[in-house]
Amino acid sequence: MSTAGILVIGNEILSGKVVDINSPYLCRELRTLGVDVERIYTIPDEIRVIAEAVKSMSQSYDYVLTSGGIGPTHDDLTVEGVAAAFGLPLERIPGIEERIQRATGKELNQSQLKMARVPVGAQLIDSGDLWFPLVVVENVYVFPGIPELLRKKFESVRDRFRGVPFNLKRVYVTLMESAIAEDLSDLLREFPDLLLGSYPRIQEESFRVMLTLESRDACYVQRALESLLARLPADAIHKVE
Amino acid sequence: MSTAGILVIGNEILSGKVVDINSPYLCRELRTLGVDVERIYTIPDEIRVIAEAVKSMSQSYDYVLTSGGIGPTHDDLTVEGVAAAFGLPLERIPGIEERIQRATGKELNQSQLKMARVPVGAQLIDSGDLWFPLVVVENVYVFPGIPELLRKKFESVRDRFRGVPFNLKRVYVTLMESAIAEDLSDLLREFPDLLLGSYPRIQEESFRVMLTLESRDACYVQRALESLLARLPADAIHKVE
Repeated sequence: MSTAGILVIGNEILSGKVVDINSPYLCRELRTLGVDVERIYTIPDEIRVIAEAVKSMSQSYDYVLTSGGIGPTHDDLTVEGVAAAFGLPLERIPGIEERIQRATGKELNQSQLKMARVPVGAQLIDSGDLWFPLVVVENVYVFPGIPELLRKKFESVRDRFRGVPFNLKRVYVTLMESAIAEDLSDLLREFPDLLLGSYPRIQEESFRVMLTLESRDACYVQRALESLLARLPADAIHKVE
Repeated sequence: MSTAGILVIGNEILSGKVVDINSPYLCRELRTLGVDVERIYTIPDEIRVIAEAVKSMSQSYDYVLTSGGIGPTHDDLTVEGVAAAFGLPLERIPGIEERIQRATGKELNQSQLKMARVPVGAQLIDSGDLWFPLVVVENVYVFPGIPELLRKKFESVRDRFRGVPFNLKRVYVTLMESAIAEDLSDLLREFPDLLLGSYPRIQEESFRVMLTLESRDACYVQRALESLLARLPADAIHKVE
């Protein structure tokens, strides 16, 4: 079973100017692949803060995925933060410099030269992207903040994260959450390894609570589902899927 | 100047089943009020993890706002986590029990009794909500995860967070980010206290980068804006707002 931490880097998220749609995307994709996302930290564009978060997540989880802060401007500090996390200097990558020069047809300016510097020893995964490859340092994958680019780069490496996927059943219940809470606790006593979620919806008409039952063991989920359905009144079940 | 940390609590976010729309809402609202959100941590439904995050954020920021984990089911552990963060026991609040009983017309079951327990000494702010008041422990505001309820409760206390708001100017530029990055660095050398954001958009037709200039001092932003406009070619400015 593998685990991941997601690090969303950018003042624009914290100040409410931009809504982070990258971490929901990564959570869904990693879940489908069978990876447990254990934490999402959203932090400002500060090298020291980035370095501390990267270091701590890198030690705690199998994979760290960062989003944002890798462009050419003053507030793009992720690569420096990741280098600082591992005590690595940055080095120029002539191949990236040449690629930028070919694309623009001009000599590189300071900000473009900055984009061609990566931590010494970083793995560079080329996904056919115009500007530069995906940078991987130890178990840290450095993704761009622009959602279209992040998705493209993630797709190019998604098979690296493949684990044992979860089996999921959803049960939609017409009773209030407080009326079934004890049945859920009893179910968990019978199936202690079940991942059981209970999500009230106040704007739905046809049900009041969505329950999710999950396990990597398909038989275990099926037995738990049968036990749950036996506990609840038949007319309280709107739908099972 | 006041600061805040946001704690999003729930396995459903980390497993990609539910998209967190509460932290973007809180970020926008707090920014408008003049509060700096310094971190967002999204964490699982585990008492120990909740307690550690609450304790650390409570010591680091003026306000902590939590979202989620306060319902009646097995995975609703936020109140216990907040109590553990401050080493407080939980106590029954007869007023809440009576309110639940009046609303349901029945004796409370175990899961409803659980919802009527709060950390000893918690401040209870009544916002006219059916089930229970907003719970505040020290500088920690415990909000529900259901977005409609979170917003209603936040609205009822928003004046508590009022600080000195930011002044914001947006400049939409038709050049690529790497072509203006050095101008931005120069601008920051002239206006070191300016909060300057640079956000490339690859799916826009009329501009390539949105710049944001912010400060709590309106004159400072205006002077910085004028300096920026003087640095960039006039035909590179799509719009200022």
